[in-house]
Amino acid sequence: MPNFNRLVRFKDTDGNIRYGEAPSSGSLIGFEVDVYRGTEPWNLSLTKERAVISERMYALSSYQTKFQVLAPLAYTPIIYGIGLNYKTHIAEAGWPTPPYPTVFTKPSGALNGPFSTVSINPQCTLMDYEGELAVVIGQDCKDVSDPENALQFVLGYTAANDVSSRYWQAPEISGQQHGYAKSFDGFAPIGPVLVSKTAAGPVGDMVLVTRVNDEERQRAKLDDLQFGVGDLIVHLSRGTTLKAGTVILTGTPGGVAAFMKPPAWLKTGDTVEVEISGIGSILNEYVYQ
Amino acid sequence: MPNFNRLVRFKDTDGNIRYGEAPSSGSLIGFEVDVYRGTEPWNLSLTKERAVISERMYALSSYQTKFQVLAPLAYTPIIYGIGLNYKTHIAEAGWPTPPYPTVFTKPSGALNGPFSTVSINPQCTLMDYEGELAVVIGQDCKDVSDPENALQFVLGYTAANDVSSRYWQAPEISGQQHGYAKSFDGFAPIGPVLVSKTAAGPVGDMVLVTRVNDEERQRAKLDDLQFGVGDLIVHLSRGTTLKAGTVILTGTPGGVAAFMKPPAWLKTGDTVEVEISGIGSILNEYVYQ
Repeated sequence: MPNFNRLVRFKDTDGNIRYGEAPSSGSLIGFEVDVYRGTEPWNLSLTKERAVISERMYALSSYQTKFQVLAPLAYTPIIYGIGLNYKTHIAEAGWPTPPYPTVFTKPSGALNGPFSTVSINPQCTLMDYEGELAVVIGQDCKDVSDPENALQFVLGYTAANDVSSRYWQAPEISGQQHGYAKSFDGFAPIGPVLVSKTAAGPVGDMVLVTRVNDEERQRAKLDDLQFGVGDLIVHLSRGTTLKAGTVILTGTPGGVAAFMKPPAWLKTGDTVEVEISGIGSILNEYVYQ
Repeated sequence: MPNFNRLVRFKDTDGNIRYGEAPSSGSLIGFEVDVYRGTEPWNLSLTKERAVISERMYALSSYQTKFQVLAPLAYTPIIYGIGLNYKTHIAEAGWPTPPYPTVFTKPSGALNGPFSTVSINPQCTLMDYEGELAVVIGQDCKDVSDPENALQFVLGYTAANDVSSRYWQAPEISGQQHGYAKSFDGFAPIGPVLVSKTAAGPVGDMVLVTRVNDEERQRAKLDDLQFGVGDLIVHLSRGTTLKAGTVILTGTPGGVAAFMKPPAWLKTGDTVEVEISGIGSILNEYVYQ
């Protein structure tokens, strides 16, 4: 479906927001790329133009750099989150295997850039991260019944952090609803590029790693998903139109701050990196307002 | 904020979709109304034009009429639902009073007209209703801290049915997340008119009645809300931009099908009416696909 391999949305040296074809390595900033015309990533056409991704070199460990790489979507109708979706994590926690995916949502305003600050309301305490593979839907679909066929509606894959305030997620505070704690503005950074299904290869081969201030906290292979990408689309499209631009966060493996002893809640200045092999890394600083 | 009293969105006799000023009685169909120019209900201007709400008389008990009254919003960014918000209902069920509103969502595609069919996927069994007062936000807002001030962001009130498939809401099926069971296309009919805050008067004076096939099932006064409209806006806008057009469903009182003995699940051809004094009635037929 898409005509890109690795789609990057960025500001060029004139400050214009553009779509371009990213290089296959992690280096983005300062790179000159082929430019796509269009505003929706499922409806782009390649131009003969080239533009430079603005500012200095992309360097993961120097967050001071003013990154000009934006979320690969300017807008999403909705972000679906999935709870409890890594088999190893379900087993180690001693939870029963759920019969269907556990679904919650994050509204469109949660969308954030791959290197943007996560700006946190002071009432959002007990801050955590959840490194996840994100799926972007590229075509409206409904009542998709076959998980294999479901993949035709996938535009591509990107990395995500399902940022969470565990204070608001506590059962006695939230009425056991996960969404509220994860729905604050900017609580869903995604990126750095959207990798087409073809360019990405099999999801099961991907490896996800989350680091906090360069310390590894989560590591999982994506073949450990209880409900695969096709299963999730079947479930989410049941009786429901999944609109192009919908983002599905596929769940997080073990290793979040909440389950460390003692819990290692994030504080102002902490950075969370979510890296997925074949996609790249997002790196977001948490800052209390 | 709004310049209307009772806003109706409808098809005129030429099939055009228009906004108009509804009469103060329940009668809508066949009525000639003053027309507003604009597509967003928070940004309308009165014209000198008049148009007739198409088709036959509005008659609640003859559902066969092809109603041409549409949801008062063409689009909503998101619909928030609130669980467990009537004090009497919380007390009679013996539940503890929640410290904060219990929040879930319904996506934009759930929006449905006040007299439209609710078309149900056959896998959505154990169908139920929840009569509710709906609040429509008329201006983007964030971090609203005072419940009184919060009301300035309310565009108006309308009636709603938080249509629910209890099969998908069962804790062992849903992972205790309420949203999925309520998020199917068309599972949020609202209307028949949007009544401005001024025209509506105090929310606490409103009475909500839900009828299934003309049999009364729910009746409550809106002064029984645990979290009032202002409280809900404070909670939902914490760290989060509530966009104009956002719909807040304020919760349902006792009397849903699930708690009847035996549960009286809805079947094809059943109609659900939600009536709120000063607003009017919506009436939707449930039909399995």
